[in-house]
Amino acid sequence: MTDDGCPYESRARDWETLDSGTLRIAMVGLGWWTRAQAIPAVERSNFCETTVVVSSSAETAAAVEKQTDSVETALTYEAFVDGEAIESYDAVYICTPNARHLPYASAAADHGKAILCEKPIEATTERADQLIRATEDVPLMVAYRMQTDPQVRRMRELIATGAIGDPVGVHGHMGQQLLDVVSTDPDQWRLAPELAGYGATVMDLGIYPLNTARFVLDADPVSVTAQMHSVDQAFCDVPDQHATFTVKFDDGTYAACTASQHAHRSGHLRIVGTSGELVLESTFLGQSSQQLTVYRPDGRSLDINDGRGDVFGDEMTEEFDYFADRVLGENPIYPNGEHARTDMQTLSAIYTAAKDGVEVSIM
Amino acid sequence: MTDDGCPYESRARDWETLDSGTLRIAMVGLGWWTRAQAIPAVERSNFCETTVVVSSSAETAAAVEKQTDSVETALTYEAFVDGEAIESYDAVYICTPNARHLPYASAAADHGKAILCEKPIEATTERADQLIRATEDVPLMVAYRMQTDPQVRRMRELIATGAIGDPVGVHGHMGQQLLDVVSTDPDQWRLAPELAGYGATVMDLGIYPLNTARFVLDADPVSVTAQMHSVDQAFCDVPDQHATFTVKFDDGTYAACTASQHAHRSGHLRIVGTSGELVLESTFLGQSSQQLTVYRPDGRSLDINDGRGDVFGDEMTEEFDYFADRVLGENPIYPNGEHARTDMQTLSAIYTAAKDGVEVSIM
Repeated sequence: MTDDGCPYESRARDWETLDSGTLRIAMVGLGWWTRAQAIPAVERSNFCETTVVVSSSAETAAAVEKQTDSVETALTYEAFVDGEAIESYDAVYICTPNARHLPYASAAADHGKAILCEKPIEATTERADQLIRATEDVPLMVAYRMQTDPQVRRMRELIATGAIGDPVGVHGHMGQQLLDVVSTDPDQWRLAPELAGYGATVMDLGIYPLNTARFVLDADPVSVTAQMHSVDQAFCDVPDQHATFTVKFDDGTYAACTASQHAHRSGHLRIVGTSGELVLESTFLGQSSQQLTVYRPDGRSLDINDGRGDVFGDEMTEEFDYFADRVLGENPIYPNGEHARTDMQTLSAIYTAAKDGVEVSIM
Repeated sequence: MTDDGCPYESRARDWETLDSGTLRIAMVGLGWWTRAQAIPAVERSNFCETTVVVSSSAETAAAVEKQTDSVETALTYEAFVDGEAIESYDAVYICTPNARHLPYASAAADHGKAILCEKPIEATTERADQLIRATEDVPLMVAYRMQTDPQVRRMRELIATGAIGDPVGVHGHMGQQLLDVVSTDPDQWRLAPELAGYGATVMDLGIYPLNTARFVLDADPVSVTAQMHSVDQAFCDVPDQHATFTVKFDDGTYAACTASQHAHRSGHLRIVGTSGELVLESTFLGQSSQQLTVYRPDGRSLDINDGRGDVFGDEMTEEFDYFADRVLGENPIYPNGEHARTDMQTLSAIYTAAKDGVEVSIM
């Protein structure tokens, strides 16, 4: 519910410029997220269509092709890299293990295709830099779906216009039961450092409060501290089954975050200001009920209209249509590689901070 | 609202053993908190009575005596230390600047009086140790009012009985506008390290999420990280106008905390477990609306009955009656000096962690 006359509604697609158009997408990587979230999101989109699917397994690719009406072509990674069916798609969505983003993004750039690359952009800062250099001639967007969530955009606008005074503190958490929700396989790539990068939890979940805080504050990290540990055997190769970290932003705001791959499935983001508070909950979870609330100094609270699921569809639909708008239209694409590079530097710093027991500055 | 048949109500005074009795209290330190919170709380209590008031200023003491029907005697600190009116009270409530707890607690112990000492127990770990030694022959309770809050006690019980699985993460925050709420005087004692101790914010506010997390988890800190800074001139002598810190507990749970003396007045405590979440909000603020909610894996949430303000009165009334119950009855008093010593060690570690940019272990 929104008070009458109060300018607190969330807004429809403040970014949209297209009237029509279609961006044909090759889905690169057909894991759980692509099948359950990305392909259905594109089916609901206005400006995107999935025309090609790419997998390590020809059988998987063929099965997804069969299930998805718009798909014309099923490819293996090798065929994709070799440039097969290059006329059948305009852009790629890369949703592979982190350390496979670089080769497929490089291939897409070689084919002259726009790229929507899942976050984190790569497994390490060095590979992120390589990816950014390899794709500098094509549009590159990193898939921070929270940044096209209408409520998150409203949060950013409310903060910028002083609705809670100056931001002071952020609390953010994301947790799930990785072995229940994503895959029961303890050998999955998120638990293998050579594919996941620095770890399993801050890379995969902690990046949500980190990046969403950056976005809504319009600020960048300057220093971090962290603690993390793993308990269960499945997590023995990664340092962070459970993690906590603090981030100081360049506006002086502190974020206190937690993330866990062995926790109740939930997420929240809270921004405390000098004269109010904004709480987004549950958040980060994809298609789920989410509420944005403003707490005001007079003791009142105010829920802000959502629209998720009816007018706007879900975050992934928003993200794909935004990507199409930027690729087909004339406005610059964002969040881009440079934006993602800062997250990679921050993630690296968080793991170093925990390992060495020191505060780490972000360059 | 509570679901029928669900054992989630908060409970009345699970600690109470007295049928009758009166503990006569000398209020030592007549600042804002004593006048606005402690004396009214004792007036509402079942087992306490304020009979003596003690201040640095004879005029202040006389004015408070005049305003409070039950008070027989107004004393200066000097007269109190000298043992005047020693037959007029059974116990003292010490609510002075942190670095004045030691002399007045020592005097109370010399007079054979039970002590309810505000938190933090003293300004430094060394002075805390001195206080604990000086008072070992009398009952000493440290005034962690959250520990007698019925909802906080219910939270602890729910966690102990597995209502959210195993605890994984804690989020806690306390903020206020110190210069508006407490005193507009920039020379107040909370901003003077020789009276406040290590700092102004983690000592005064951060201790709430820290200690309440300890209590509800039934766990103790093992290591901390922290970042803090001051901006405004009034805070130039203390390091922590704004602060964030992480705590690892001995059960593996991480707490991510923030505290600010220049923020919207608010507080929250959230415990994330492996199969649910508990959120207490707003909390830490004394007499204010507070709600305890359980989030369950089935996606449902459940508010837990409070009773604050009708059956139970406020936290401070609970605290004073609990103190009387333990002093007049036969059960051991808690939270005691040893419990408070761990907080002082943790607070010291948090300030060291921030100053030196390192993770600090708690001895």
